[in-house]
Amino acid sequence: MSQARESCGVFGIYGHCDAAELCYLGIFALQHRGQESAGIASSDGQRIRCHRGMGLVSRIFDKNTLDQLHNPMAIGHTRYSTTGSSLPINTQPVVAEYSQGQIAIAHNGNLINAPLLRRTYEAHGSIFHTTSDTEVIIHLLAKPDHVIKPDPLAHVLNHVQGAFSLIIMLPDRIIAARDPHGIRPLALGRMGTGTYCVASETCSFDIVGAQYLRDVEPGEIVELDHRGMTSRYFCQPGQVTPAHCVFELVYFADPASLVFGQNVHTTRLKLGRQLAIEQPAKADAVISIPDSGRCPAMGFSQESGLPYVRGFVRSHYVGRTFIEPSQEMRDISVKMKLNVIRESIKGKRVVVVDDSIVRGTTTRAKMRSLRQAGAKEIHLRISCPPVRRPCYYGVDFPSSDELLAHDRTVEQISEFLDVDSLGYLSQEGMLSCMDQPADHFCAACFSGQYCVAVDPQVSKYSMERNQLHMF
Amino acid sequence: MSQARESCGVFGIYGHCDAAELCYLGIFALQHRGQESAGIASSDGQRIRCHRGMGLVSRIFDKNTLDQLHNPMAIGHTRYSTTGSSLPINTQPVVAEYSQGQIAIAHNGNLINAPLLRRTYEAHGSIFHTTSDTEVIIHLLAKPDHVIKPDPLAHVLNHVQGAFSLIIMLPDRIIAARDPHGIRPLALGRMGTGTYCVASETCSFDIVGAQYLRDVEPGEIVELDHRGMTSRYFCQPGQVTPAHCVFELVYFADPASLVFGQNVHTTRLKLGRQLAIEQPAKADAVISIPDSGRCPAMGFSQESGLPYVRGFVRSHYVGRTFIEPSQEMRDISVKMKLNVIRESIKGKRVVVVDDSIVRGTTTRAKMRSLRQAGAKEIHLRISCPPVRRPCYYGVDFPSSDELLAHDRTVEQISEFLDVDSLGYLSQEGMLSCMDQPADHFCAACFSGQYCVAVDPQVSKYSMERNQLHMF
Amino acid sequence: MSQARESCGVFGIYGHCDAAELCYLGIFALQHRGQESAGIASSDGQRIRCHRGMGLVSRIFDKNTLDQLHNPMAIGHTRYSTTGSSLPINTQPVVAEYSQGQIAIAHNGNLINAPLLRRTYEAHGSIFHTTSDTEVIIHLLAKPDHVIKPDPLAHVLNHVQGAFSLIIMLPDRIIAARDPHGIRPLALGRMGTGTYCVASETCSFDIVGAQYLRDVEPGEIVELDHRGMTSRYFCQPGQVTPAHCVFELVYFADPASLVFGQNVHTTRLKLGRQLAIEQPAKADAVISIPDSGRCPAMGFSQESGLPYVRGFVRSHYVGRTFIEPSQEMRDISVKMKLNVIRESIKGKRVVVVDDSIVRGTTTRAKMRSLRQAGAKEIHLRISCPPVRRPCYYGVDFPSSDELLAHDRTVEQISEFLDVDSLGYLSQEGMLSCMDQPADHFCAACFSGQYCVAVDPQVSKYSMERNQLHMF
Amino acid sequence: MSQARESCGVFGIYGHCDAAELCYLGIFALQHRGQESAGIASSDGQRIRCHRGMGLVSRIFDKNTLDQLHNPMAIGHTRYSTTGSSLPINTQPVVAEYSQGQIAIAHNGNLINAPLLRRTYEAHGSIFHTTSDTEVIIHLLAKPDHVIKPDPLAHVLNHVQGAFSLIIMLPDRIIAARDPHGIRPLALGRMGTGTYCVASETCSFDIVGAQYLRDVEPGEIVELDHRGMTSRYFCQPGQVTPAHCVFELVYFADPASLVFGQNVHTTRLKLGRQLAIEQPAKADAVISIPDSGRCPAMGFSQESGLPYVRGFVRSHYVGRTFIEPSQEMRDISVKMKLNVIRESIKGKRVVVVDDSIVRGTTTRAKMRSLRQAGAKEIHLRISCPPVRRPCYYGVDFPSSDELLAHDRTVEQISEFLDVDSLGYLSQEGMLSCMDQPADHFCAACFSGQYCVAVDPQVSKYSMERNQLHMF
Repeated sequence: MSQARESCGVFGIYGHCDAAELCYLGIFALQHRGQESAGIASSDGQRIRCHRGMGLVSRIFDKNTLDQLHNPMAIGHTRYSTTGSSLPINTQPVVAEYSQGQIAIAHNGNLINAPLLRRTYEAHGSIFHTTSDTEVIIHLLAKPDHVIKPDPLAHVLNHVQGAFSLIIMLPDRIIAARDPHGIRPLALGRMGTGTYCVASETCSFDIVGAQYLRDVEPGEIVELDHRGMTSRYFCQPGQVTPAHCVFELVYFADPASLVFGQNVHTTRLKLGRQLAIEQPAKADAVISIPDSGRCPAMGFSQESGLPYVRGFVRSHYVGRTFIEPSQEMRDISVKMKLNVIRESIKGKRVVVVDDSIVRGTTTRAKMRSLRQAGAKEIHLRISCPPVRRPCYYGVDFPSSDELLAHDRTVEQISEFLDVDSLGYLSQEGMLSCMDQPADHFCAACFSGQYCVAVDPQVSKYSMERNQLHMF
Repeated sequence: MSQARESCGVFGIYGHCDAAELCYLGIFALQHRGQESAGIASSDGQRIRCHRGMGLVSRIFDKNTLDQLHNPMAIGHTRYSTTGSSLPINTQPVVAEYSQGQIAIAHNGNLINAPLLRRTYEAHGSIFHTTSDTEVIIHLLAKPDHVIKPDPLAHVLNHVQGAFSLIIMLPDRIIAARDPHGIRPLALGRMGTGTYCVASETCSFDIVGAQYLRDVEPGEIVELDHRGMTSRYFCQPGQVTPAHCVFELVYFADPASLVFGQNVHTTRLKLGRQLAIEQPAKADAVISIPDSGRCPAMGFSQESGLPYVRGFVRSHYVGRTFIEPSQEMRDISVKMKLNVIRESIKGKRVVVVDDSIVRGTTTRAKMRSLRQAGAKEIHLRISCPPVRRPCYYGVDFPSSDELLAHDRTVEQISEFLDVDSLGYLSQEGMLSCMDQPADHFCAACFSGQYCVAVDPQVSKYSMERNQLHMF
Repeated sequence: MSQARESCGVFGIYGHCDAAELCYLGIFALQHRGQESAGIASSDGQRIRCHRGMGLVSRIFDKNTLDQLHNPMAIGHTRYSTTGSSLPINTQPVVAEYSQGQIAIAHNGNLINAPLLRRTYEAHGSIFHTTSDTEVIIHLLAKPDHVIKPDPLAHVLNHVQGAFSLIIMLPDRIIAARDPHGIRPLALGRMGTGTYCVASETCSFDIVGAQYLRDVEPGEIVELDHRGMTSRYFCQPGQVTPAHCVFELVYFADPASLVFGQNVHTTRLKLGRQLAIEQPAKADAVISIPDSGRCPAMGFSQESGLPYVRGFVRSHYVGRTFIEPSQEMRDISVKMKLNVIRESIKGKRVVVVDDSIVRGTTTRAKMRSLRQAGAKEIHLRISCPPVRRPCYYGVDFPSSDELLAHDRTVEQISEFLDVDSLGYLSQEGMLSCMDQPADHFCAACFSGQYCVAVDPQVSKYSMERNQLHMF
Repeated sequence: MSQARESCGVFGIYGHCDAAELCYLGIFALQHRGQESAGIASSDGQRIRCHRGMGLVSRIFDKNTLDQLHNPMAIGHTRYSTTGSSLPINTQPVVAEYSQGQIAIAHNGNLINAPLLRRTYEAHGSIFHTTSDTEVIIHLLAKPDHVIKPDPLAHVLNHVQGAFSLIIMLPDRIIAARDPHGIRPLALGRMGTGTYCVASETCSFDIVGAQYLRDVEPGEIVELDHRGMTSRYFCQPGQVTPAHCVFELVYFADPASLVFGQNVHTTRLKLGRQLAIEQPAKADAVISIPDSGRCPAMGFSQESGLPYVRGFVRSHYVGRTFIEPSQEMRDISVKMKLNVIRESIKGKRVVVVDDSIVRGTTTRAKMRSLRQAGAKEIHLRISCPPVRRPCYYGVDFPSSDELLAHDRTVEQISEFLDVDSLGYLSQEGMLSCMDQPADHFCAACFSGQYCVAVDPQVSKYSMERNQLHMF
């Protein structure tokens, strides 16, 4: 699967002489969460500096820009967005100045009530430079009523609804906070005395050499400063039932990461095993769609006893076809990414495992490649239920109309993809593979049951419709 | 002279199917006013789009970006800033959204009370994304008290002090306005029925094929919309004495432009003639420092009867020297721009005419080139008085300490430059070459008499000290 | 393994209106054979045009360059070379003009007697622009004695010794030829009536939609022109024993390709199975070094019954670390490519399978990552024998001194890599996995038995020592 | 004028630790002779290295490439070519290896008999990689018959016909040579004990700080090596009448240069004075077409007594118009380069001076700008005769058909340009301004009298027709 996009990855580090350089490595390791723009803000203890840009992390930063950011604390952000709203103005971290001085914020998630708050603030005279939720948070923090509260940040975070894993930098500290449902992940790490990290996923800790400590808890605010790490809660633990995004474990996160405290790779193996139990197939071999389907395919093979065979070779190069579209050339761009190993497929009945189907168009092209390579039967197995509903908490699915399963039965999908059989994992089966209770997860994109109520009048799309068209 | 930098050039066009493309040509023609960043915002009547970037206009825009801006109205901006404050965040036009919808502003000038206003607004909860004065104007417009005024823009423009030639775009109109002193220029042009232009200088009208109509008057607001062109005043004409920046005519503006209604080239010829009267020299020939000194040198030659001779050849290529600095290599970078025609100089007593001296370092290197080429005597003549004070109204001089004439007598300067004689034009002489009365001009950089009082505590530098360090 | 480099991939297509575009796709699919420079030459039937450059195929070509090459026949080349000899002048195809008109050549392989021929020709007045063997072939073809022969190409190919899979383009035809030992692969494909392809590997046929016909035989010359495909032999079949490069099947070729008529993926599975028989290990799981070790690791798992587990995640992004080398940061650059899945490794005895070891430095870093992730025992298994000798036929190994196994016993290597056990596949075992008899393969890099005698005085290195230093 | 293009500028320096860096400066200063590609070759005394590329000198070289060329001797080349033959393969210096070792050549000029020699050598088995004359010279040098001559270079230079100013580098020396007619310039300079320069024009000496010594004489060979500077002649002085290209003085050379021992600027002033005598005009002012017409316009003004006025402002920026061609937009691209100072022109009778007319299309657009700006009368004066014939000695004129004056009378040209009067300088008048006798100059492009007979069958165009189409 490749058409659902996580909006963001965030990383912060406090107390290291190479903070900006390590932050670069941290967001480099989080690019699977967003690879269309990135930024780093760092502070020398008094002034915040920032560099942001469009494109891959390795293109945006070089020795020179990192040298200019050389400071003992830094936060970074990497971001995806669909073509329409891929706006430079929304590149993060957002940096602004208000009565209390400078502030930089890197945000993963989506605020349900941001459009409403924005309208309210505009009515009171505020101006907005971006279309991002993150700017709303800064306006809330800057409000004179809030500034005088004992804990302005806690006060503000109680006013925003939805998903937020935030890393905030003030000139002298880094603050991490997570919404009461803990929808998006946020992990804490340590690198030595007085050096702390915070990141969307622990795979970024591995690359910088940090130890995973624990997650930032739902409703918790963690401050990293010269005193070390201190914690408080803006929402008491236990008051709200967690609603961790199950799609993080199914699809987004890096297999090497711990997410919500559980290993991603191991979880996906379990999903594959459960899939083999629920949706067995008479076949000669199991193959995976690289790279997303590899973990569940291995699990499926282990449970079913069918041999796991390599069916596709993934190209490590990026290229375009310059030929005018025509009958004969149609599937070339898929083949430039994935080539079939004919010998693994020819004359065989194959189980093909993938982690999910969103639009279904590239999946169809891949099935066609397998047919052309001589597959006798194709049994497609998906390690989650059909994706039927949008996400309002930070996953950038296409609109409902474009979701293949939105208004189609499994039979209709099977026909569209031209496979011999199609089996999805059940929601119960999926949730049974998790380390926490089933009701601690959000599965709204499958079930339509949203943990935070969404006013359809003020959905995230309303803001997009009003976005500033800047590019 | 090359070290004083005008901050900006602005251009707007309403009612043309190729508005963005013509706006591109307009700001292209204004790059002598600022060549470090540029931007264009355009509107289809309902939504504003914008593209901005660092570098030359030709690098920032291409067919693709202009196609995305293809709309019937557009405003553009080109900008210079010294290295320290060359911040992408300050690239214009500034585009924001407030209670009344979208707004884009391109601004040439400098507001004296912007730092004070900024502090006030921050105290009331506003957040700032840039360090530019322009953002302050949008905050003022967004204030609920102001929004309800009969003419909010007029109200706001009465609250800001200093220099401003503004081009504002709302989704359905373009508005041009100029401060009551008319410090910076702003000209109106017409291209046909219902198509209007507004620009810092008329040289941009030539390139797009527009006719110069008249200047936007000091204190005037001109609106360009579907009704055509309408005018009103936020400050009654005659209430304030004009204070046009004389340095525009001496140095900044393009020789082909009309500025404050008078032709730049003709004015500079007059300055050269006056210089010859005030500061004659016994010499064999007159040469100019390309390209800035060419007009006054021709005037000097005409008045003095000394032959005008070509002493330097200017390279059309940009290059760097990669050699480690050493005795022998010192002046190479100056020579890469200007080469001396030895035969014009050798054994001769030459009058060298330039328009001004700011820091004096490159002037010294040029004088040294002339000596090395065999000049017998060098008589340097400058077509304005010594630049001794900073400008608070939009000219980006170096700090006072770096101004060569700040604390030096003419003799000391002459010695520093190692010339046989040095003569500056007097302030009276300079102003006598203008078409308007002498007291209609600001000559504060020479005299220290500022038309708008500057609170030294809240000078433009105070904001720079507080700037957001983004790059 | 990543330090042995094949020199080249070649592709040619005759008789298709989109020949250059398909050639671009063809060399795109061959980039695993060389990714430091590439080129395409095409012909309209009368004149040859060419575009070459340094870097990845996707960077060198764009719509514009391909449009200029739009012609009904094209040949392409993609190339690797070590830093020292990475010379733009050696970029292929080589295009030259001689008495018979224009000629373009794309060459995979290495000619043993090229230095000698070069000296001879220089003595007769020839001048050389490159340091490549390929230029020597053109000089041979241009020799007046040869031009008059009944079949000049056949005559010339009998004079050169070593490895050559050649694709030659004359203005009106494409000619493919292969050395009598058939050292490097060269495959023929068909796309429809009158449209033929020739390529190093069949994976390039898949991407353009061509059918594999057969290999160009050792000693064969195949011509593709308006008459279709015709064949002749410059060296009679059977006269010379084949010596196919076994390393193509072990390491270089794409798993989806047929090489020497046998499927690469299937062969590597067999190598893994044989490895499990020869070098078993008491362990809990089998993991592979991505991507090269994946096929043999799956074979090892199948034979041994040990579960195949995912131990590493490979990053799809390219990046650099900008931090000064230090104790703490040492292994970061390896981790930026490969991250360990801790849960797969922790506390386990793992068999790690790779296809080969050349220098051993990155292998050592990977073993260290596994230790750090908590591996209890590491049993490294390699699906070929130790690489001990250089290749004179086109594989770009480092010099003997840099080959880890050159003068080390298996015990010493095991110690260097700090693994609990190390096992290599035997040469007999390796060759037993091939479809052709063992004596039809060249295994000189393992055994030192070279099929074409190499005069140590005139080795390939002698030419490199004399190379023209151009960059 | 801007459509005649000199092919090349050459520069060499021996005996300086920063030779490559100074060579970079040298060719930088020669870019007016060719700005489409450039290259530098340097030697450490034993091996030659080279870097070449397409585009401006400042783009091709950076600190890194110059560091790799850091050596005590270097030669460089900068080159123009028309679109059709702008081939990377022809970028110079040409570097090759032959029996005597490495050789690099930078060549300004055109060899008349190169096509014939090329055919002969091809018949003897030589292969050609480029379409340049320069490669022919290396083939001649490599011929075994020539290698054994007492002075192979002298022998070879007697075999080639046409124009050549050559700078040759062998690993241990630099050699400069010039054809017996001395068609193209070549000057010698000194920088200190044992450090020598050689260059197309002395303006490059100014930038590196060298002293002009004298010209390399027609028929002379100058060697620069550890012994210092030595001279010999391959063609005895006086044996051949010089035929210096008068167009170098009229148009190509930099005004600051000495060419054929005479100052360019001074010569052009004389041409302008002579033009005023021959072609007077009743007018109010003299203006020039920047920058080429500035020198003769000043001379015209001095002689005629008419005031020299600034009519155009030249933009220092490069830009394109992205608007679809239309009636209203036609002349924009000319205006982006040159803007008219309306006040200098309006209502006036102006003499416009330019140095030459080649195609006439941009001249016509410029005349139209003047009319639009209100010029009452336009009297165009050209400081050379009508250009009617092609150049076979290294000036890249368009083909005869495209030369405006090829088959038009002065009246017809005047009508085409829509001017009130048109006057060309006579050939006698032009030659009377030279320091050497009239018969020491080649004026074939005006008169059709070629100093070296051109076989129309084997003209320079024949080679172009056979060029290798590489790009």
